[in-house]
Amino acid sequence: MIKTQTLKGFRDFLPIQAKKRQFVINTLKKVFESYGFEPLETPALEYEEILLGKYGAEGDKLMYRFEDNGKRKVALRYDQTVPLARVVAQYQNELPMPFKRYQIQNVWRAENTQKGRYREFLQCDIDTVGTFSPLADAEIIEIAATSLKNLGFKNFKILINDRENLKFKSNGIALSQDRNILAVRAIDKLKKIGKDGVSKEMEKSGFTKEEIIEILQVVEKTKLTPRLSEVFSILKKLGIPDAQYEFSPTLARGMDYYTGLIIEAEVEEYSAGSLGGGGRFDNLIGLFVNKQIPAVGFAFGFDRLIEAMEELKLFPVDLQTTKVLITVFSPELLDKSNQVCEALNANNINQELYLDENARMEKQLKYADKKQIPYVVIIGPDEAKNNTVTVKNLKTRTQKIIKEEKILSLF
Amino acid sequence: MIKTQTLKGFRDFLPIQAKKRQFVINTLKKVFESYGFEPLETPALEYEEILLGKYGAEGDKLMYRFEDNGKRKVALRYDQTVPLARVVAQYQNELPMPFKRYQIQNVWRAENTQKGRYREFLQCDIDTVGTFSPLADAEIIEIAATSLKNLGFKNFKILINDRENLKFKSNGIALSQDRNILAVRAIDKLKKIGKDGVSKEMEKSGFTKEEIIEILQVVEKTKLTPRLSEVFSILKKLGIPDAQYEFSPTLARGMDYYTGLIIEAEVEEYSAGSLGGGGRFDNLIGLFVNKQIPAVGFAFGFDRLIEAMEELKLFPVDLQTTKVLITVFSPELLDKSNQVCEALNANNINQELYLDENARMEKQLKYADKKQIPYVVIIGPDEAKNNTVTVKNLKTRTQKIIKEEKILSLF
Repeated sequence: MIKTQTLKGFRDFLPIQAKKRQFVINTLKKVFESYGFEPLETPALEYEEILLGKYGAEGDKLMYRFEDNGKRKVALRYDQTVPLARVVAQYQNELPMPFKRYQIQNVWRAENTQKGRYREFLQCDIDTVGTFSPLADAEIIEIAATSLKNLGFKNFKILINDRENLKFKSNGIALSQDRNILAVRAIDKLKKIGKDGVSKEMEKSGFTKEEIIEILQVVEKTKLTPRLSEVFSILKKLGIPDAQYEFSPTLARGMDYYTGLIIEAEVEEYSAGSLGGGGRFDNLIGLFVNKQIPAVGFAFGFDRLIEAMEELKLFPVDLQTTKVLITVFSPELLDKSNQVCEALNANNINQELYLDENARMEKQLKYADKKQIPYVVIIGPDEAKNNTVTVKNLKTRTQKIIKEEKILSLF
Repeated sequence: MIKTQTLKGFRDFLPIQAKKRQFVINTLKKVFESYGFEPLETPALEYEEILLGKYGAEGDKLMYRFEDNGKRKVALRYDQTVPLARVVAQYQNELPMPFKRYQIQNVWRAENTQKGRYREFLQCDIDTVGTFSPLADAEIIEIAATSLKNLGFKNFKILINDRENLKFKSNGIALSQDRNILAVRAIDKLKKIGKDGVSKEMEKSGFTKEEIIEILQVVEKTKLTPRLSEVFSILKKLGIPDAQYEFSPTLARGMDYYTGLIIEAEVEEYSAGSLGGGGRFDNLIGLFVNKQIPAVGFAFGFDRLIEAMEELKLFPVDLQTTKVLITVFSPELLDKSNQVCEALNANNINQELYLDENARMEKQLKYADKKQIPYVVIIGPDEAKNNTVTVKNLKTRTQKIIKEEKILSLF
């Protein structure tokens, strides 16, 4: 017999979990669209050469690659940024510029499985392509903040820095690109592991004691760049509350493709890490057309969002789709139950008829429990005779008998 | 330079198309949920042995299969029914029974590409698992009809038959299962290719002239089975209009796993084929637990739905996300534009500020055109001085100047 198991590193989302995911997706979409961002969908599979080499050797290793039946070398979507670059190249004349798109699709990475790391996970990206304007930077920050607010988070902050602040020197001479990236990656951990931790990591990467001191001093003295000043002044004009964003000189973000603004979303009560990040990356989207196409964007860590919302109990209690289960007492009384269904249905109250006229009442109540349906209606012989219905509230475990025509007033 | 192309047989959905898809998905979800169906998500990849052999040799050939980095033999989701069977086996104790789930995810098939055939396409399935009750059959029919109605279709019909009516005999002796399937597949084409066409196809499959005459006579004389009578009487009680469903003795459906009810959705003005189909399949879902688990379901042909809705012009004209583009006349007048944005935003009117304060007005208007934004607001030096705004209607190509405080009344 075949063993039924979900593939290692992959997940099934049963209804209770799937509904939470949909709630988050719908909330985010609504925010994105209110700022004029529009959906884009790209295929799960791409020609391998489109994806290869864009994420470094590590990325190529983690990519799901194979040969299809037509001997084409293909790979599963690894992120949504390279497909965006391909789309921008391929449909240059059709797309409005700036191109503001959101994309909410799965990506696949052959990661080592560990807590919170999966091989299939949803990415939620918004990106504005085709403008250098600080207006675009500010808008992305505003959307990140509004999204968190609309999801129900209270004490959140968008941390903001500029990669300009992270161009380090040694003895007055700019570090090579590779060494600068190593320094940035270490600095990115300053909040988490402190100065000593960062120093140790930088020593391991071959920095001298003097270089480390110099770099840490630069970080401490960092100020708003002219560009950030502009972005901050736009944020003020847009009326974004001060408490929602903050200049953070220690914010570095590990990815090496950022060219200006970098941002990260934090929630005070959720310590497991940032809920998303982004920034300006002016040299990536033009990749397939050999010219510079500026871009700025943000991506939510979808699984982190869900986890944080669960921890902080931000999901609405009434995510269940059905509000009332109408039970069927016996095949003879099915018509009576049907009548109640129709009355509720006509008034747009989500109801459900139990789909087995021969099932015992106990089984029907258990069904409502498992589905977290809050109310159950029973119409037995007595109720039928008296034109009443029994309504059980499964949360309070109370019940009452009311006249059938009064039932609408209950929900 | 890498050639940017979408993988053969795959599609990008740019915003205008992606929004149409979302409109259909949202409409369907709403209907499904109003009947107590809940979302389920399963992974794109499954262990190959879970999927193999369930769809016959043809299916195995069309499946995307490969070895992952951990040498596991895996395959991309080929349909949503086998994953459902796996989920039912794996989470037996957690799932409410009957289990009513919908699933809207992509599947992948290495089909020969031709018009309307893609290698990645969306499936929209609803299934009720765990009950033999005709109530479940009737509910599936009702949902198929309500979905088409809510999408805007007028002259649609759910065709209904019972596989019982398609158990054929030769000289009074039941056909073998294999020969019966061949006969069913031919009969399924009766409407399309007529009696002669079906006869020819059956001859090719090795049926004798006498057998063909006998089988066609049986089809002609077919009546409602007792089970269908029950389903039809429930549909009547549910108040489904007569015009929305019809007994169709020639409906056969090619798939061999149906065990009772079979249904198909047709729209009069759309001749390219059925918009979806389904039926009862009591021997498939129990596959991984070696016991019978009854089920009944329906699946929409998503691409067909979109095509039919486009042909019949059923998409709302206002699918664009942004209603008003606020242009920026010059960096000095950005604040003025921002004020208008805020006023519209505070009143939940989807507006968008053009994200480049240095762009020429012509470019900004072109952007609105490409994005099909219906209104554009311009605030130049004259407007700023007089506290007015110029509002262009891009559909009628007219414009007027109004007082700034009157702008809300326009939208």
